[in-house]
Amino acid sequence: MKFVDLIEKKKQGYAHSQEELEFIVKSIMNGYAQDYQISAWLMAVYFKGMSEKETAYFTEALAASGRTIDFGDLKNLIVDKHSTGGVGDNVTITLIPLLAAAGIPVAKLADKGLGHSAGTVDKLESIPGFNTELDVASIVKQVSETSAVIASQAKDIAPADKKLYVLRNTSATADSEALLAASIVSKKIASGASNIIIDVKYGSGAFMKTPEEAVQLSKRIVNIGKYLEKSITAVVTSMEEPLGRAVGNTLEVIEAIEFLKGNIKEGDLAELTYSFASIILMQLRYYDNEAEVRNYLRGLIESGKALDKFRELIAVQGGDVGVIDNYDKFSLPSFKIECESKKCGYIQNINASNIAKALSALGASRDSAIGRIDYSVGVYLNKKSGEYVNKGETLYTIYSNDEDSTRVAQRHCDEAFSINDSRPAHNSLIYEIVRTNEDEDV
Amino acid sequence: MKFVDLIEKKKQGYAHSQEELEFIVKSIMNGYAQDYQISAWLMAVYFKGMSEKETAYFTEALAASGRTIDFGDLKNLIVDKHSTGGVGDNVTITLIPLLAAAGIPVAKLADKGLGHSAGTVDKLESIPGFNTELDVASIVKQVSETSAVIASQAKDIAPADKKLYVLRNTSATADSEALLAASIVSKKIASGASNIIIDVKYGSGAFMKTPEEAVQLSKRIVNIGKYLEKSITAVVTSMEEPLGRAVGNTLEVIEAIEFLKGNIKEGDLAELTYSFASIILMQLRYYDNEAEVRNYLRGLIESGKALDKFRELIAVQGGDVGVIDNYDKFSLPSFKIECESKKCGYIQNINASNIAKALSALGASRDSAIGRIDYSVGVYLNKKSGEYVNKGETLYTIYSNDEDSTRVAQRHCDEAFSINDSRPAHNSLIYEIVRTNEDEDV
Repeated sequence: MKFVDLIEKKKQGYAHSQEELEFIVKSIMNGYAQDYQISAWLMAVYFKGMSEKETAYFTEALAASGRTIDFGDLKNLIVDKHSTGGVGDNVTITLIPLLAAAGIPVAKLADKGLGHSAGTVDKLESIPGFNTELDVASIVKQVSETSAVIASQAKDIAPADKKLYVLRNTSATADSEALLAASIVSKKIASGASNIIIDVKYGSGAFMKTPEEAVQLSKRIVNIGKYLEKSITAVVTSMEEPLGRAVGNTLEVIEAIEFLKGNIKEGDLAELTYSFASIILMQLRYYDNEAEVRNYLRGLIESGKALDKFRELIAVQGGDVGVIDNYDKFSLPSFKIECESKKCGYIQNINASNIAKALSALGASRDSAIGRIDYSVGVYLNKKSGEYVNKGETLYTIYSNDEDSTRVAQRHCDEAFSINDSRPAHNSLIYEIVRTNEDEDV
Repeated sequence: MKFVDLIEKKKQGYAHSQEELEFIVKSIMNGYAQDYQISAWLMAVYFKGMSEKETAYFTEALAASGRTIDFGDLKNLIVDKHSTGGVGDNVTITLIPLLAAAGIPVAKLADKGLGHSAGTVDKLESIPGFNTELDVASIVKQVSETSAVIASQAKDIAPADKKLYVLRNTSATADSEALLAASIVSKKIASGASNIIIDVKYGSGAFMKTPEEAVQLSKRIVNIGKYLEKSITAVVTSMEEPLGRAVGNTLEVIEAIEFLKGNIKEGDLAELTYSFASIILMQLRYYDNEAEVRNYLRGLIESGKALDKFRELIAVQGGDVGVIDNYDKFSLPSFKIECESKKCGYIQNINASNIAKALSALGASRDSAIGRIDYSVGVYLNKKSGEYVNKGETLYTIYSNDEDSTRVAQRHCDEAFSINDSRPAHNSLIYEIVRTNEDEDV
């Protein structure tokens, strides 16, 4: 097989066979294919797409390109949750202790954050001592003992995908639906999960701009699961405005702790956490009735069991559990500025993309000017959509270590808020849940 | 400007500005663009195309990427002829002495042949001592003194095109019409020609398989000329069967000499040579009347003036002029085999692609098994389409240095001939002449 002939085949719009897709991934790994051939193939895939079957075979080949994790007896239970990335998205940190408290083994393996969003792993590293660099044996052991682990994805998990990730981003092919779906799912498959929930976000703070695109991607993702016999649920959610009130690494961990303490009962963070947990419990057939499962989950918060599980997780991974009761144990920023609203009215929307720019200016994300992540900085949204603000009342608070960047962040935040007299309609955070229809033939 | 943004722009189907196309070519040259970005851009161009204006700007930028030749006072007269490549195509060798004998300065700068077709430069190097590696000063001087030069294209002519050529061939983007047209014309522009005639071939022995594709490419080529104010004529000709009777380097030079001696008065080689020469003389307004110009050209052959010009050209470029009167001075093959027809009938067609395979097996082309060109080998077609052959009569002759390769070549040649009882219709070699309509606005 010559790689150039496979480029030509895709360019002409033909489907690749499983053998060809395996050959392509092997050629990426062993250097038989040149980078400039791979990127031309990626662009041909962008234009001509892949069938569901091709996408599944390609995903499987990517997953098989490196190490795969086997959780032994637990393997059919293991849950993994992934988000396509948003602003202020700390649902993983609330969800995992909650599921683990319900007795469900969760192994969250994540890439470090890229671009404007810091990843879950970055956020947890704001807890002093918390170690996310675990080897595979430790990951497997911790899941069987603690029911929960949050670790950096090992470098040798789906290495072909890592290589493609770089090429896709520099060759303008990152938005191919098939490539994106295969990339997301391949890592989850290699990481050993059988029950995968994927939060596919759309909106100003997300990669996908419209719910329709997000639904398309979700269907593609779920169908890979059908072919590869994994249970995948994709939840299409809005990322028009940041999730929760806290945006920034330490701030988001504190907010997650507040949720686990039972101090945050409503709002988007609570809504998504409970929804995702219910979906998983019902998917695993632990419950049939959604009201019942939600009651059960609320009980795990109120009884302190979910918080205990988080405490245990932090301790096992070497973190300072003292942070839970004393937030001063986090590294704190030099100053905070409460920014007042210049007018009164209802918050119509808080543009997530503008808030992301503020965070980048402050140094909270990987693409920040300082070149590393400052865990302590961030923005707290004192008001969110649908709430009323008086003129002079605090609209948001900036946590910062630097005056110049604060001014830039403030400008981005001011631009983010739109305020006027009418009370906005409440839009549901969850746009659609896409899952395998088990009666349907593949 | 970021290169990835330009890939994205083309991917979305937008047209590039002149500035962007110049930036792209500069980025190719200075390494700012990675090869994998360039190939992704090439694939996006394949799918989304380029407008006529973009193609012209891109051509100009490619031409400006290296050295350009200036013929001084002669520059508005200089003629260059290019063929997109065929089998047994030696028209350049007949045409140039003929035009030079008519007083028209011709500077033919050519790449060495690639793949199945040996180039004009390769063919002429079969003349002992003939030197095609001339520097720019020698090229300019020779044209002003001799009116004719045939040289290898200098390495620093359109180097960006050379780089793209490699990427296009390995990334399955060689058949993009815009890229192909820009590649062909850029070299001619950089080589200093003002009057360009391009033989765009279609058929089994050519890159373009149908006349429609060849006409499309021709229009694209001619329109570049309109924008860049160069006179370009594209002649769409059939390459279903090899041109002339000789195929192979030495054999084709001998056939060209025979034409210049006046011994070949009819057939496809004569037809194309006279047609191209007429087109150029009429384009330069030396003649208005085609019958008149053809009479004049035939006179240049009959008087020996064209042959004298070829003798002069060979001498100036260091070749042994003795070959003209004594073909034994060429390096000759070990043996020749006259292959008989197994049946009688009219030759319907001689598949050019099969003959090319035979030549490759014999070692006559650059992609041959021996890795270098054997000038002496080839195939002589004793019968051509429309002619009648008796059973046992010689159909073709193989000139070879090796028995094994002869057997392979013979098999390919036998497959090439289709013979049956009915006399085939005579198809015109020239399908269409595409040239600038000067009344038309750009």
